[in-house]
Amino acid sequence: MIAHSFSGEIFGPAQQLHGATYGVEVEFRRAALDGDGLVCDIGLALKTLREVLGELNFKNLDELPELRGKNTTTEFMAGEIFCRMKARIATGAIGPGTAEALASMRVVLRESPVAWASFEAPLR
Amino acid sequence: MIAHSFSGEIFGPAQQLHGATYGVEVEFRRAALDGDGLVCDIGLALKTLREVLGELNFKNLDELPELRGKNTTTEFMAGEIFCRMKARIATGAIGPGTAEALASMRVVLRESPVAWASFEAPLR
Amino acid sequence: MIAHSFSGEIFGPAQQLHGATYGVEVEFRRAALDGDGLVCDIGLALKTLREVLGELNFKNLDELPELRGKNTTTEFMAGEIFCRMKARIATGAIGPGTAEALASMRVVLRESPVAWASFEAPLR
Amino acid sequence: MIAHSFSGEIFGPAQQLHGATYGVEVEFRRAALDGDGLVCDIGLALKTLREVLGELNFKNLDELPELRGKNTTTEFMAGEIFCRMKARIATGAIGPGTAEALASMRVVLRESPVAWASFEAPLR
Amino acid sequence: MIAHSFSGEIFGPAQQLHGATYGVEVEFRRAALDGDGLVCDIGLALKTLREVLGELNFKNLDELPELRGKNTTTEFMAGEIFCRMKARIATGAIGPGTAEALASMRVVLRESPVAWASFEAPLR
Amino acid sequence: MIAHSFSGEIFGPAQQLHGATYGVEVEFRRAALDGDGLVCDIGLALKTLREVLGELNFKNLDELPELRGKNTTTEFMAGEIFCRMKARIATGAIGPGTAEALASMRVVLRESPVAWASFEAPLR
Repeated sequence: MIAHSFSGEIFGPAQQLHGATYGVEVEFRRAALDGDGLVCDIGLALKTLREVLGELNFKNLDELPELRGKNTTTEFMAGEIFCRMKARIATGAIGPGTAEALASMRVVLRESPVAWASFEAPLR
Repeated sequence: MIAHSFSGEIFGPAQQLHGATYGVEVEFRRAALDGDGLVCDIGLALKTLREVLGELNFKNLDELPELRGKNTTTEFMAGEIFCRMKARIATGAIGPGTAEALASMRVVLRESPVAWASFEAPLR
Repeated sequence: MIAHSFSGEIFGPAQQLHGATYGVEVEFRRAALDGDGLVCDIGLALKTLREVLGELNFKNLDELPELRGKNTTTEFMAGEIFCRMKARIATGAIGPGTAEALASMRVVLRESPVAWASFEAPLR
Repeated sequence: MIAHSFSGEIFGPAQQLHGATYGVEVEFRRAALDGDGLVCDIGLALKTLREVLGELNFKNLDELPELRGKNTTTEFMAGEIFCRMKARIATGAIGPGTAEALASMRVVLRESPVAWASFEAPLR
Repeated sequence: MIAHSFSGEIFGPAQQLHGATYGVEVEFRRAALDGDGLVCDIGLALKTLREVLGELNFKNLDELPELRGKNTTTEFMAGEIFCRMKARIATGAIGPGTAEALASMRVVLRESPVAWASFEAPLR
Repeated sequence: MIAHSFSGEIFGPAQQLHGATYGVEVEFRRAALDGDGLVCDIGLALKTLREVLGELNFKNLDELPELRGKNTTTEFMAGEIFCRMKARIATGAIGPGTAEALASMRVVLRESPVAWASFEAPLR
């Protein structure tokens, strides 16, 4: 649940400060399962996602220094969350060796019953 | 897809003009089916709902005279759409005799993947 | 997955033989849980539902003697499945004592992403 | 995400310690909206729900003293979460005056794509 | 909501005129967001989709000259809607420059709770 | 609906015998539709999927000889069902010529409202 405003005529009333509620999903992909038969440790993955979302939840995104000058649209935020997840995964947040084993990741943000955006990219 | 603003400290940044996208569902209830085996004519019901939503879609609700002074929250709009549907049904919009036969109606507005509001009441 | 045709001008092209695919859900209600902490035995409930649906699945409903002269609309079929479930429950299909303990039941048929019908009634 | 075991032959292999992941939804009902046009403060409602779930999440329910001797089935847990929410609401957790204004509440636990349980009751 | 019939023994009763209700979704993909932080103008995208669907909605597809001789299956219609969207996008319907910037598009038709089809292809 | 246990400390209480309920979806892909305008015969596809799931449903996976020594995680089972479907498709289970025409297939297992796994691969 965040607040933000957009810059640009195309956004109409959304140029003013307003709120949004996102449902966030992350999908991890790899060529073959690990020795335990897993893609990754789902407990660590959820913990990592919660930490990333904790940096954004209940915030006015306009006031976050690292997002200044950006239109924090749904599609932009999908990419932003992807980058924050990727950085943590690279430091072992979802398990040693998992960063190297994962091939790609997809982040989906659902903003309404009829609209969503996603960002996906290789992890290597 | 509407724009609106709320009045009251409890709304935080939503006191400023912002937008929302709703998924709208209507449920009709009656004690027994009609002679055709139907609750009502789903084609007429959809047409009526589209007419009601057409009065609100792509509008700034703050500028609609009939909503002035109201906080057009999701729960308020569920009731508002219920009333507009009920008025049209009473004049035969979804078929002659159907208004009398329907026992109750429920309107659901989905505003995000994790939030919805509904309004339900008898039709007689 | 059934085939059927409807009788009555209101149905337009659906007066001719056509097909439908339903998602079927059943909800059981009781005032208090049983000694095991259950509403009912979900395994027996699923088995009973499968038996009831097995009588209808891949059938041309127009050819079933017990449905002759009926418009087998989604709302009609919700009631029909309710009745068939209720009859089996009464003979102990979902466990001895459960028929007496259940207060009501609801059957939902989803016929498309935007349309469903349900039938609900007391079981006693 | 909890671990638990059930007692009783009817549960088959679920008599042994196993895990479950629930999606939890709460629905609040009242006869008329408050002065702000709201059913209740959704921010406080979510905070309260998170506190209640925080007492159960990542726990072995068999080891919680207050649940000892209970089969913590999905339907039982729906009632348990209802009671914990109700107790907090009574002490003003979702706003002063809201406890008195709410008519009833419903808690839904989704345990799989094809199974859910709910508990609903008046709040007064 | 369309009517149609199929040609070929494999279709069984669906060889006769029957109806279908589709939920339609369109997904746009590009390598990087535009200067506003957008994939495309969602308002124009919805308007364009509504225009395309308006050519088909409440029609008997068997009577549309451009579809004559085709089996208008769900998978065929996904491709048909893709082509109609692509043609409009190419003429600037969802914004100048967007046609060139989009990499690919996917159209999904949901025909029942358990069946859907999609068509996806590059836009360049 | 299966029972199973996992081997490895990472699984915590799931090392003990426990149960799971999966929603299973299969997606077939091909470059162009067949002469009837179809991806494949959905009736045969469902029949084949039911046969494959029939080998696993209501089973203790720990006791199936062909799965011995495997952790039958959701992601593993997605791959296992893929392989069983692929083998049947290769012998013509979903129609003569279809095996050669299909480009790839995807199997999705939904294990809870917030968790799923899939396996996808070319069919040729």
